[in-house]
Amino acid sequence: MIIVMRHGATSRQIANVSAQIEQLGHQVHLSAGEERTIIGVIGNGRPLERGQIELWDGVDKVVPILHPFKLASRDMKPEDTIISLNGIRIGGEHVVVMAGPCAVESREQLLGAAHAVKAAGATILRGGAYKPRSSPYSFQGLGPEGLQILAEAREETGLLVATEVVSPEQVPLVGTYADILQIGARNMQNYALLQTVGRAHKPVLLKRGMMSTIEELLMSAEYILSQGNERVMLCERGIRTFETYTRNTLDINAVPLLKQLTHLPVIVDPSHGTGKWELVAAVSRAAIAAGADGLLVEVHEHPEQALSDGAQSLKPDRFVELMAELRRVAAAVDRTL
Amino acid sequence: MIIVMRHGATSRQIANVSAQIEQLGHQVHLSAGEERTIIGVIGNGRPLERGQIELWDGVDKVVPILHPFKLASRDMKPEDTIISLNGIRIGGEHVVVMAGPCAVESREQLLGAAHAVKAAGATILRGGAYKPRSSPYSFQGLGPEGLQILAEAREETGLLVATEVVSPEQVPLVGTYADILQIGARNMQNYALLQTVGRAHKPVLLKRGMMSTIEELLMSAEYILSQGNERVMLCERGIRTFETYTRNTLDINAVPLLKQLTHLPVIVDPSHGTGKWELVAAVSRAAIAAGADGLLVEVHEHPEQALSDGAQSLKPDRFVELMAELRRVAAAVDRTL
Amino acid sequence: MIIVMRHGATSRQIANVSAQIEQLGHQVHLSAGEERTIIGVIGNGRPLERGQIELWDGVDKVVPILHPFKLASRDMKPEDTIISLNGIRIGGEHVVVMAGPCAVESREQLLGAAHAVKAAGATILRGGAYKPRSSPYSFQGLGPEGLQILAEAREETGLLVATEVVSPEQVPLVGTYADILQIGARNMQNYALLQTVGRAHKPVLLKRGMMSTIEELLMSAEYILSQGNERVMLCERGIRTFETYTRNTLDINAVPLLKQLTHLPVIVDPSHGTGKWELVAAVSRAAIAAGADGLLVEVHEHPEQALSDGAQSLKPDRFVELMAELRRVAAAVDRTL
Amino acid sequence: MIIVMRHGATSRQIANVSAQIEQLGHQVHLSAGEERTIIGVIGNGRPLERGQIELWDGVDKVVPILHPFKLASRDMKPEDTIISLNGIRIGGEHVVVMAGPCAVESREQLLGAAHAVKAAGATILRGGAYKPRSSPYSFQGLGPEGLQILAEAREETGLLVATEVVSPEQVPLVGTYADILQIGARNMQNYALLQTVGRAHKPVLLKRGMMSTIEELLMSAEYILSQGNERVMLCERGIRTFETYTRNTLDINAVPLLKQLTHLPVIVDPSHGTGKWELVAAVSRAAIAAGADGLLVEVHEHPEQALSDGAQSLKPDRFVELMAELRRVAAAVDRTL
Repeated sequence: MIIVMRHGATSRQIANVSAQIEQLGHQVHLSAGEERTIIGVIGNGRPLERGQIELWDGVDKVVPILHPFKLASRDMKPEDTIISLNGIRIGGEHVVVMAGPCAVESREQLLGAAHAVKAAGATILRGGAYKPRSSPYSFQGLGPEGLQILAEAREETGLLVATEVVSPEQVPLVGTYADILQIGARNMQNYALLQTVGRAHKPVLLKRGMMSTIEELLMSAEYILSQGNERVMLCERGIRTFETYTRNTLDINAVPLLKQLTHLPVIVDPSHGTGKWELVAAVSRAAIAAGADGLLVEVHEHPEQALSDGAQSLKPDRFVELMAELRRVAAAVDRTL
Repeated sequence: MIIVMRHGATSRQIANVSAQIEQLGHQVHLSAGEERTIIGVIGNGRPLERGQIELWDGVDKVVPILHPFKLASRDMKPEDTIISLNGIRIGGEHVVVMAGPCAVESREQLLGAAHAVKAAGATILRGGAYKPRSSPYSFQGLGPEGLQILAEAREETGLLVATEVVSPEQVPLVGTYADILQIGARNMQNYALLQTVGRAHKPVLLKRGMMSTIEELLMSAEYILSQGNERVMLCERGIRTFETYTRNTLDINAVPLLKQLTHLPVIVDPSHGTGKWELVAAVSRAAIAAGADGLLVEVHEHPEQALSDGAQSLKPDRFVELMAELRRVAAAVDRTL
Repeated sequence: MIIVMRHGATSRQIANVSAQIEQLGHQVHLSAGEERTIIGVIGNGRPLERGQIELWDGVDKVVPILHPFKLASRDMKPEDTIISLNGIRIGGEHVVVMAGPCAVESREQLLGAAHAVKAAGATILRGGAYKPRSSPYSFQGLGPEGLQILAEAREETGLLVATEVVSPEQVPLVGTYADILQIGARNMQNYALLQTVGRAHKPVLLKRGMMSTIEELLMSAEYILSQGNERVMLCERGIRTFETYTRNTLDINAVPLLKQLTHLPVIVDPSHGTGKWELVAAVSRAAIAAGADGLLVEVHEHPEQALSDGAQSLKPDRFVELMAELRRVAAAVDRTL
Repeated sequence: MIIVMRHGATSRQIANVSAQIEQLGHQVHLSAGEERTIIGVIGNGRPLERGQIELWDGVDKVVPILHPFKLASRDMKPEDTIISLNGIRIGGEHVVVMAGPCAVESREQLLGAAHAVKAAGATILRGGAYKPRSSPYSFQGLGPEGLQILAEAREETGLLVATEVVSPEQVPLVGTYADILQIGARNMQNYALLQTVGRAHKPVLLKRGMMSTIEELLMSAEYILSQGNERVMLCERGIRTFETYTRNTLDINAVPLLKQLTHLPVIVDPSHGTGKWELVAAVSRAAIAAGADGLLVEVHEHPEQALSDGAQSLKPDRFVELMAELRRVAAAVDRTL
């Protein structure tokens, strides 16, 4: 952390700031320029409140030097985290595809979708039993019954199951059915929930909030990691911008940037990232070309009857075609799929 | 809802769409233009899935006509909601000021701030016992101990207490200490929490998410109202934009717009809305001039030692000055404060 | 400027960076911490290319310390700039109101509006003869004929005239008719145009781009100031955000922030800032309460027939009421209007 | 266009609206529901002012049905526009790569870069002689001398030249040197400039404004097309969002969306789109996988000495590697490069 003193700060102010920093257990390095004095802080590991220090007499501004995330950072752990799960390895050379409907709507619907995505080559089934919806009048998911249907689909198809958990007290129940606990975009900063899944013994798929920065995403991962759960995947799913032709703007830059900043696997959700099924194939190919470790794709046998997110769901035959396209792109960047 | 058919949609497609809508219990009105056929849907109260219909054969797009919120809308309830609480009326002619530190840090700190804001004329004390922080390494609040300190401050000063609740299972506990339950910006779409406070017998202060539209804010209010709790206040606290000189961009337009769309009281938080104490006074005056029913202001006796949000907190003497300024602006718009 | 070296930067790298900076005529101050070395740069006035230095061997990042604007900054000129124009003083105790239609549509329309706003107490007439429209098929303004109508309105009413100039070669012509040259939001970074008005002998009203930061606005002012024209007013007119209920989001924070950063007068345009006439009054009051030096308000006798921006224009009788409201708010913040 | 009348609109209001629309030469189709009457407008080709109609008595809102762009739309011209230029075809099966430095800095620098990108397989040289910079104190380009250097590079290497034009009066001069006229992001809505290049006999590369919607980009293309110049390429170069780790957020969704909406070729600029050279390769691969017709890449022999945009420029050897990667990705999506 660097403390920049105001133009004209007195030597007494400079001495006071230095003394206070040292009292908090940190070391200081003074750099007295002609116009400005700059105070470098050598940390002792305990965080300093930037907003507080900016109010100290004579201080102009405080500039953080280090990233605020630690366990999630590649500086801390240079090699890629690979999450092994029933023979599937997420984060390595192989690109994983998670697919299925937005919501579990019925036994028939889910099993149909599960068989279809399995046949196309997906290895993980997605589907929500609990659906956070912006309207209280929209379909909210089947709840526990949905979880049982997911378990049945896993039994029948051998697919692993990723499903969303929306509040801390559900974590044990959902954990008995799911192979991967998904934290939705709206809950990315629900810290009580993050801490609870941080103590669960299941991999976590953490979706980026639609208006959260990459740094905030990594800080939310840090909440989970700091509770001891090291199996965290990050998911770029589109951010909110001024553009209205698409539901969200998929942040493709985030893929190589996250691979640089963190050792955690990076998954891309092109369905939410665009909100339009016609764009899903192109953006899926782009994600893999950019280096994503996996995709989360919505597939529904009858999108025109879907209770949630029909507009962004692929039909099974289009998904089969997409998988073929993706295998070619993966090969072109030395990955398998 | 209006369904716009594609240019060239066949009469069979048009008939099919009409039949499906009628089967769902709604009526249709056809308007066959030369280029396009438009199908007006007369609702039966049950919501239709827009994304689903847009996938039907021959449909180009679906345009919603009515606002999706009902209980929160002024169409439903034209007169202002006034929340009465121990003699304080929120939402009427009087402008209410809630003030205090961001977080309860200690008994001494909170009592000092409480006496100061009381003396300046505030009637409600704010202060967080549970603090959602973006870093797991930052101060997270004193928890239950903080609640007890808040209760003691109420006892000593006669101020009412507004404090944040961050997960559903805390609602009963926080409710025994607080007069107003605050839902923070990060939890605006934590639906499990919204439903729980919707069943509590305490007024709720619902903060707009930094990434949430006005419509989403009203839909979140709808979650609370639809559970039976009619005492909801909405709080504009700044949205996230591309501007970096301020922490957030306070959306002043939201004040008159919300007063037009809804009967619920509208509170403004200039501290989070700007992130800089130097801007708080100007933006507080603006909020009242724009028609806000109340303010939520951070006040701290020693901002330079605050464990959270020091940079946006006013010192007590500046807060006293601000209250005097606000009384003049309130009078200029025929309100009292 | 501060150069932060990478963790593990070699002493050779540090020496090289220092040498290069010195070769460019700047001085360096080294601060060698245990983890990082920090190099403070004492400038000689000539700017350094930040992006270039970040590529030098061993450099992690470059942190600017000073604001990039100089002539516009309050550090350079602490006292407020007051623009005197035919007895009107902009930037002092008095709040100026500029009003009129978005576009000059006809002689009758403009003269009608001019008399109406004059009667209500405005002192400056606004109206566009050249209209930058997003569609080539929309009304583009009357051009030179519009300028003549504006001149006639000035003659008849004694109002001063503010009108937009959209390309460098028009500046002489527009300057012979207008008292104030307006640079529209879409041209805020049209540098050829900024330089041309910087050499004109007329005050300039520079509107913030809908996509521009406060720093960029001040840098665009710097373009004008650096050509010798010191009579620049800045205009906040709403920025583009994710919110869709309003056309733009008026950035009320910008008012006190600009007053802090710069000595130039700050004008607010509540018509574009909201895009809805129903919100104009509330936001106008807010702007004055926040410290704005003036307002730019769209007034049209028949908004329902306006060729541009009807939805955000006030009718004359509503404008009369607004002026009365504004006088009261201005008095409450010790200003006149 | 659909006009939605207010709940409770009188039959007189409905009749008046219909009459006014018919008077403007359009036809109406009434759809009288129980709650609302909806008036469909069958256009006669002349645009209606939406903001005006929304102010008519009894009108609630106006909903546009058709896209506002015509000449640019795929509805108008279903087959792809292919721009042929000295044997290079832009918009067909082949993916074109335009590369070179951000700015022409010297003869030596430009010729060095030109030979390097030619050797790597690029066919078009990019480089700015006129540089719009946010600071008046930054390097503004070499002007006419830069144009001559570009011409010399074309002569020597056989590369075509794309270079920016920043004001209408420069178009003839720049046009004598350039093969492609580039309109920069800041000038996307400089309509005087768009109209001038619309009358020039050179292909135009139109960059999307950093905060412009896709619709606005297409409307700006419409300005050029409507003047008779049909050779327009669109360039996605990143939009401004709240994310601060990257300079811009490249909108990858825009690639397939533009290919759907328009027949014009779509180019991607990964250098500005990310602002960081480390991300350029990944995002370039993504762009091609998503269906882009070309790339615009900054290459500089000595980025650490570049007078503009060094941080986002590739060195020639990295560019050679990138071209090899891109050929593989292009092949995987059935394109050549």
